[in-house]
Amino acid sequence: MKFVLAPDSFKESLTAAEAVAAMRRGVLAVFPDAECVGVPMADGGEGTTEALTDALDGVVLSAPVHDALGRPIQARYGYVDTEQLAIIEIAAAAGIDLVAAAERDPSIASSYGVGELISHALDRGATRFIVGLGGSVTNDGGAGMLQALGAHVLDAHGDELPRGGAALARLHRLDLAALDPRLAGITVQLASDVANPLLGATGASAVFGPQKGADPATVRELDAALGVYAAVIEALTGTDVAARAGAGAAGGLGAAFLAFFAAEMSRGVDVVMDAVHLADHIRGADFVFTGEGSIDAQTLHGKTALGVAEAAAGHGVPVIAFAGRIGPGAEALYDHGFAALVPIVHGVSDLPGALADGAANLERAVATTCRLLALGRRRSV
Amino acid sequence: MKFVLAPDSFKESLTAAEAVAAMRRGVLAVFPDAECVGVPMADGGEGTTEALTDALDGVVLSAPVHDALGRPIQARYGYVDTEQLAIIEIAAAAGIDLVAAAERDPSIASSYGVGELISHALDRGATRFIVGLGGSVTNDGGAGMLQALGAHVLDAHGDELPRGGAALARLHRLDLAALDPRLAGITVQLASDVANPLLGATGASAVFGPQKGADPATVRELDAALGVYAAVIEALTGTDVAARAGAGAAGGLGAAFLAFFAAEMSRGVDVVMDAVHLADHIRGADFVFTGEGSIDAQTLHGKTALGVAEAAAGHGVPVIAFAGRIGPGAEALYDHGFAALVPIVHGVSDLPGALADGAANLERAVATTCRLLALGRRRSV
Repeated sequence: MKFVLAPDSFKESLTAAEAVAAMRRGVLAVFPDAECVGVPMADGGEGTTEALTDALDGVVLSAPVHDALGRPIQARYGYVDTEQLAIIEIAAAAGIDLVAAAERDPSIASSYGVGELISHALDRGATRFIVGLGGSVTNDGGAGMLQALGAHVLDAHGDELPRGGAALARLHRLDLAALDPRLAGITVQLASDVANPLLGATGASAVFGPQKGADPATVRELDAALGVYAAVIEALTGTDVAARAGAGAAGGLGAAFLAFFAAEMSRGVDVVMDAVHLADHIRGADFVFTGEGSIDAQTLHGKTALGVAEAAAGHGVPVIAFAGRIGPGAEALYDHGFAALVPIVHGVSDLPGALADGAANLERAVATTCRLLALGRRRSV
Repeated sequence: MKFVLAPDSFKESLTAAEAVAAMRRGVLAVFPDAECVGVPMADGGEGTTEALTDALDGVVLSAPVHDALGRPIQARYGYVDTEQLAIIEIAAAAGIDLVAAAERDPSIASSYGVGELISHALDRGATRFIVGLGGSVTNDGGAGMLQALGAHVLDAHGDELPRGGAALARLHRLDLAALDPRLAGITVQLASDVANPLLGATGASAVFGPQKGADPATVRELDAALGVYAAVIEALTGTDVAARAGAGAAGGLGAAFLAFFAAEMSRGVDVVMDAVHLADHIRGADFVFTGEGSIDAQTLHGKTALGVAEAAAGHGVPVIAFAGRIGPGAEALYDHGFAALVPIVHGVSDLPGALADGAANLERAVATTCRLLALGRRRSV
């Protein structure tokens, strides 16, 4: 019997690798001879670096960069030597969780640290990048990242603009002459579940600006500034990157990646599944176990479990999903490749207790599930 | 496929019959053609009247009786016409839940109402009684019950003793001449998980007196009074009922039943299983589903789920138990006939919420379990 164990992290409770380990214990308690293939998963958001690095036997490195407000920090990213692959979450440098709510100011917040992180990985030898675009606190269209990589962001007098999205209103020219030449040889897979364009009512500023601290007047100002930026990019490259789906991801970092790098953007879980060769593992398996902290109607919008279920359904292998919470609307998932949804809590509990007991609860729920699978098997003989 | 659905009540959430209904919905959602045999279960304690009456298509009747303090109340009991069977919980008349904590006084509390309840059932035509002995607030050895049925409980002057356990210290003679003659024709199955004798360190007064309001001095007084009572019974009947296992159940009501009625005492769940012919239903079933509010190490001490598991194991049918809480030590049940223990909660919840959602949670957990059984079946082909 072969089981593929492909859970996401259980947020605030288990990393994906820890979830794999708990699942493995649960399976082996009931089927001691089973083959368990563990594949820590992620959806391109928080935990992607850790899961992919675990899955690909890479190492987690730490790079000295600057956060969105220019303060020095250490940012973690993953690196897989055998594939010259860097695994980056832009949130590690430009993340909203790094800036206190009262300090958030998308007018001056810069993606500079993302460029520093890429530069560090280039030094290490990276030629492939997987970049998770979630969780930014910036709105600068990736201009800061370009600056960190050698580009000059200039006003009409040829002076360098200060960092942040607001200054782009005075942008006159992007000078790429000094851009790190190693960037010409890289490929970038962008993981993003955001399909918003750069500008307008569904653009970066209007949709994501408010949660980064922008009031309505600032939203209008930032959107106009990104408009100038987009026009300069179009003049330089000949393509209207602003209108592309996902250009508005991560405060417009999507636009910079799409305009200047050999970058392709995909749904986060697809990027991860591709990187870990999930389809190869699923082929020939009897069951796929996935899971994450919460499964509900939202899971239909591109979360990890759905991606895993779709992949397994393609190979005719049933998927069982485990979650700390099976919420409202989860039943709809039975129409999307899920064979069973199993909650892991074992009684009344508060959230801190449930989070603390995550590993034990998951192991028990997996063991019970295996018992039931064995019973079904037995009765059919 | 045949399922036997034999849950206990889920305390404060579902009656056993409601639990059967929720289980049935869950099974049929996955196996629309399955045969579901519903058998509401109980363990002789709270909910036994309702479960057995539901299981045997009886009616619930109400009788005007007196509670342990002599206050008029309506007491419910079950009656099955076709079997001339009355189903009584002594707690309906002499129950601890009927008396506020501050009012509890085992010196004067009387089982008189239990006798009234039996009398009401005799009027209805009962010749068989199932009597659940749990939950009493009395300590009178059943003397009050005998008084209500026509016996005289007399002191040395031939005067009737007042009700309650303390007065038995002055007992001189039990006069059964006027005892209801219909009692000679009845059989009584006593359901009790208490094996304590009537007297001494493990007797009714010492073990159960304190929770009924007795301080240490009162315990000694009550134990001595029951000693007098036991001596009078032995002189009258020639048998030492006080030493028999279970004579101390329900404040000594066990002793009175064993001494004066054609009564046999069994573990509660065995009495119930026998009454509902559970073994006949289990024969030929594919799965037995049982359940109750909480399953843990205590379940090994004679609760419903254990009885059902033992019965099913005897027929080689796997038992799956569902519970609102799967508590510490539950794993030990896997050595006692349980095939799987399935918690029914679906996420973090507080107790009121979990109790309110009991039916929906049970239905979902049963459906998920059936999905897993079906998956196991499928993969073995």
